[in-house]
Amino acid sequence: MSDTPVALIILAAGQGSRMQSDLPKVLHRLGGVPLVGHALAAGRGLEPEQVVVVAGHGADLVTKAVAKLEPEAGIALQTEQLGTGHAVQQAMPLLEGFAGKVIVLYGDTPFISETTLEALAAHKSDVVVLGFEAADPGRYGRLVVNDQGLQRIVEYKDADAATRQIALVNSGVMALDAALLRELIGNLGNDNASGEYYLTDLVQLAREAGRRADVVTCDETETLGINTRAELAAAEAAFQARRRTEALENGVTLIEPATVWFALDTTIGRDAVIGQNVVFGPGTTIESGAEILPFCHLEGCHIASGAKVGPFARLRPGAELGGDVRVGNFVEIKNSVLDEGAKVGHLTYLGDTHVGEFANIGAGTVTCNYDGVMKHRTEIGANAFIGSDTMLVAPVRVGAGAMTASGSVITQNIPDEALGMARARQINKAGLATRIMAALRVRKDNK
Amino acid sequence: MSDTPVALIILAAGQGSRMQSDLPKVLHRLGGVPLVGHALAAGRGLEPEQVVVVAGHGADLVTKAVAKLEPEAGIALQTEQLGTGHAVQQAMPLLEGFAGKVIVLYGDTPFISETTLEALAAHKSDVVVLGFEAADPGRYGRLVVNDQGLQRIVEYKDADAATRQIALVNSGVMALDAALLRELIGNLGNDNASGEYYLTDLVQLAREAGRRADVVTCDETETLGINTRAELAAAEAAFQARRRTEALENGVTLIEPATVWFALDTTIGRDAVIGQNVVFGPGTTIESGAEILPFCHLEGCHIASGAKVGPFARLRPGAELGGDVRVGNFVEIKNSVLDEGAKVGHLTYLGDTHVGEFANIGAGTVTCNYDGVMKHRTEIGANAFIGSDTMLVAPVRVGAGAMTASGSVITQNIPDEALGMARARQINKAGLATRIMAALRVRKDNK
Amino acid sequence: MSDTPVALIILAAGQGSRMQSDLPKVLHRLGGVPLVGHALAAGRGLEPEQVVVVAGHGADLVTKAVAKLEPEAGIALQTEQLGTGHAVQQAMPLLEGFAGKVIVLYGDTPFISETTLEALAAHKSDVVVLGFEAADPGRYGRLVVNDQGLQRIVEYKDADAATRQIALVNSGVMALDAALLRELIGNLGNDNASGEYYLTDLVQLAREAGRRADVVTCDETETLGINTRAELAAAEAAFQARRRTEALENGVTLIEPATVWFALDTTIGRDAVIGQNVVFGPGTTIESGAEILPFCHLEGCHIASGAKVGPFARLRPGAELGGDVRVGNFVEIKNSVLDEGAKVGHLTYLGDTHVGEFANIGAGTVTCNYDGVMKHRTEIGANAFIGSDTMLVAPVRVGAGAMTASGSVITQNIPDEALGMARARQINKAGLATRIMAALRVRKDNK
Repeated sequence: MSDTPVALIILAAGQGSRMQSDLPKVLHRLGGVPLVGHALAAGRGLEPEQVVVVAGHGADLVTKAVAKLEPEAGIALQTEQLGTGHAVQQAMPLLEGFAGKVIVLYGDTPFISETTLEALAAHKSDVVVLGFEAADPGRYGRLVVNDQGLQRIVEYKDADAATRQIALVNSGVMALDAALLRELIGNLGNDNASGEYYLTDLVQLAREAGRRADVVTCDETETLGINTRAELAAAEAAFQARRRTEALENGVTLIEPATVWFALDTTIGRDAVIGQNVVFGPGTTIESGAEILPFCHLEGCHIASGAKVGPFARLRPGAELGGDVRVGNFVEIKNSVLDEGAKVGHLTYLGDTHVGEFANIGAGTVTCNYDGVMKHRTEIGANAFIGSDTMLVAPVRVGAGAMTASGSVITQNIPDEALGMARARQINKAGLATRIMAALRVRKDNK
Repeated sequence: MSDTPVALIILAAGQGSRMQSDLPKVLHRLGGVPLVGHALAAGRGLEPEQVVVVAGHGADLVTKAVAKLEPEAGIALQTEQLGTGHAVQQAMPLLEGFAGKVIVLYGDTPFISETTLEALAAHKSDVVVLGFEAADPGRYGRLVVNDQGLQRIVEYKDADAATRQIALVNSGVMALDAALLRELIGNLGNDNASGEYYLTDLVQLAREAGRRADVVTCDETETLGINTRAELAAAEAAFQARRRTEALENGVTLIEPATVWFALDTTIGRDAVIGQNVVFGPGTTIESGAEILPFCHLEGCHIASGAKVGPFARLRPGAELGGDVRVGNFVEIKNSVLDEGAKVGHLTYLGDTHVGEFANIGAGTVTCNYDGVMKHRTEIGANAFIGSDTMLVAPVRVGAGAMTASGSVITQNIPDEALGMARARQINKAGLATRIMAALRVRKDNK
Repeated sequence: MSDTPVALIILAAGQGSRMQSDLPKVLHRLGGVPLVGHALAAGRGLEPEQVVVVAGHGADLVTKAVAKLEPEAGIALQTEQLGTGHAVQQAMPLLEGFAGKVIVLYGDTPFISETTLEALAAHKSDVVVLGFEAADPGRYGRLVVNDQGLQRIVEYKDADAATRQIALVNSGVMALDAALLRELIGNLGNDNASGEYYLTDLVQLAREAGRRADVVTCDETETLGINTRAELAAAEAAFQARRRTEALENGVTLIEPATVWFALDTTIGRDAVIGQNVVFGPGTTIESGAEILPFCHLEGCHIASGAKVGPFARLRPGAELGGDVRVGNFVEIKNSVLDEGAKVGHLTYLGDTHVGEFANIGAGTVTCNYDGVMKHRTEIGANAFIGSDTMLVAPVRVGAGAMTASGSVITQNIPDEALGMARARQINKAGLATRIMAALRVRKDNK
């Protein structure tokens, strides 16, 4: 975190028409999280006093998404898209009374690092522009710098040949003293080709007011913005590549790194083993030494040391697996805690359930947690043995050390150590299989 | 389509010995469809009056496959492989009486585009050869062209140094006036090194008969032929790359494009979201805004707007999902219609079933549609609530707003709004679980 | 195999600290098998008289793993890591009395080929060093060779400029006459910068004793050692790429080669078709013409011609599928034999089971093979028809041509041709569904 108080403004009003989408651009997902969530997450490292998101296109959806991602963030509405300066202007009323540094980020620029933000926040100048050395400066605005700091930002179309030689270009991200911003934002003009208010014009206004502007630089990859779905897919690939490399460096085994997909907040401990084709949704923590077999889909879950999951397992939000828990194939677990050593081997759905330690859940077990109107909880005691194909009609409790007979529908609690059963006696009817088949064949032939 | 009537001859008689396969080469699959199906599909755009496939190796299998792909196509048998000219000769009797353009395609050359075929069909010359500028002309036949059109095709081994400089080469694809073809095909000789009848010799015969030959060109990538499994895998990769790019451009979100596999006829609407590792078999349509989660296998199905499928779902031919339908994990659906808002969350098999709107299918439900001899249908009414682990023994009907008790085997119809149940009462036997386990442990120890 | 008797010493004592792992480096897996298993497997081709693995870090785990991979291998303990010479010294007591060639391999160098090992074994010199032409010789030890054979190995730091020009470098692998090795190993010194005993110093000792040393070369790729998880992932990718190419050349169809993962011993027959995303664990054989659909996880299983598996199937060790067997989606099979033509279509767990020919196993069937203490077997006769959701409580036998009623829990044997059933009669309660739902809604509203 920074010494100076920081406020963030995140511009998230654009339509993103090149995305060919009805969804606002900043809500397209990267690493399982809306783009705007990446800017919010990076900013969180600064412990900002305030965060304002400027919404425009699809403002209702953006507002809803931001409320989930950063409940304390304020939303400013920019009903017309009149430029970055105009967008920041809409945010200023929400920062009334704030003193410190205002950092302006973009909801479609997900890779700005915490380190870069800290450098912006820590800089003493009143106006700081984030620049980068562009491999191909192309049509970016050039940053003209001398020993008096940043002199001006020259748009490509206004640049002479010498200025076009400058490789240091403008990312659009800025850090500004709040008081100065408040003082100058109203003075921005729109007397330019597109008729928009440009935030970058603040550099000149600040210098005219006798303030110094400066540049902080970052790597070009941090400034990558997203305008098309192909760019989004490329950004996803870049994000994943970085996360995979980090995981390997941290002592995680990824059998085939290219087939493991991380979410923004995925955490995996040392000596965990992740098989081929594992998708992590948001909110997953894998502790050291756990093993995830191929073809798993994990989201919002916590997996303790020594646990083994998959192949073909799906853990949904609220799944908490204790030490040495075993979850096998074609198993779905949602909002359930499994204590140490519990086993759920095959073809099972557990929802809203607590499984005690060393309990064994037979194949085909279902916790019937939904009655058509409400969800209810199932409690399975330690060392319980749930027979295959047991239906546990919640709310219901199976006691510690209790057992269910295979194929039972359990609607009432089973005391500790008791056997619960609900099934019909088997009868065998001699020769009937043969007669049934013969009859069916006749019926088919007569059709 | 073209103004001139068109007939297609597709050469599909070769063995493809470099494939190391007992399967005829043209039946190896690309984009989920036999290679010969790609040529048939491209030709379909011309609305040809007739299509003839020339089969040889594995002719019975090829005939069967073509009957599925293009029921109206004729099959000509080429029992000996004596060259392309000989192959076309076998096809001519089936085109008796046809007047117009005959286009000769290859069953192992899947990428010729409709645009290219239209250019061939539209060209006014009696003989048109499809050529391309080869990056590496190598051993292709050179096309010698001047302002009088195509003068001759020179095989590499017969070409002098100057002719070898020509980069315009022969793809083998030709369009010919039917009457001319009929007149000249018998004049082809086999007085050459391999003793085969070459279709390309028709250029010279036509010119000797005073007709003009010309060249239409296409991109080299269209002419890619397939001779080994490695080439087939490379062609599959090229096919998939193209389809992924098109999807992104059309506004589809592919989280990881490299892990989505299209079939030849896959259609996906704008703003649909496709997760990692989704395989589309033939015949799938995903409407705008539907979401397919990771690890899904979809074939012959239709998914309406707002529907959400997966992860780990398999939709088989005849699965039709209405708006906002939810299909969850470890669910298989075959030949079944799910009306708007129906939910099938977990571990379920639905076959030959109609599910009414907003019906809820519990985990572990199975439609027992096969009695060992015949398949039968299941009807589930609107707003019905199927309890977990319900067996629906078809033919059977669950009424609108009806309910089944969890764990029931339903063999008789349930009226609207009624509850159907078939289960034993639960009894709990105190302490029995503990005694059973103790006895089992003793038995094990005594072994 | 070689004419000369061969013994192998495999050095596997290192910690591999750059792996960032508590697991000994040689136990990290490649192609589903611990690294040390690759050296053991390559060596097996020589039919060695003796194999000694030198263990150190994590020696107990290494010993256990080696016992599984190569039960006859001896283990020598190197409690301190004092260099390769010291490691070999620890192994010598186990080779007492052995006469012939000792080949020294490394447990973290998995790609040495059988051909290379044969060349080492067949060479007549008493000391043979495996070298390779390095693309970038970097800091490798240089091999100085003239017509008298290998003169000396010069460490990079001791090499003058001319010697550094030599591209022929030392892999570390050596083949030595056992008697000579026994005679000289005690003479190795550790008077060098790291204070370690270097096996390579044997070259000089041997020459001083009047023996000739020589070099056998291999491709650089064979000498790849593994030091980090990123290198392990790269080695896995190299291993898989090679196996995929071989499979294609052998006439296997891999729809998307990059998504098929082989184990070291995977065998696949000609004209087998392997879909996208198939993971082979150790011990799998797929016969000619079998088809594996996408998303399958197969380990320790045998699949006969004409069988079709998946998608979403998991076969575990001991699964044996006969000709034309069909295993469908969400099916797990463990330690079970399925005879010709058996069908297991959906959502089933079979463990410790024998399924007779042409038997049909309904959806949702579970063999309840575990009673909480022991595993038991299930026997299903030929042509049996197991109704959906049948629980087969093992030990139990379903006779040939017998049938189970859907939803039955079968605890007693069913005679041939008989029908076994255990279920309650269905009752319908008019209007009850509606009343229940209404009551639940009231209850929810009152909450």
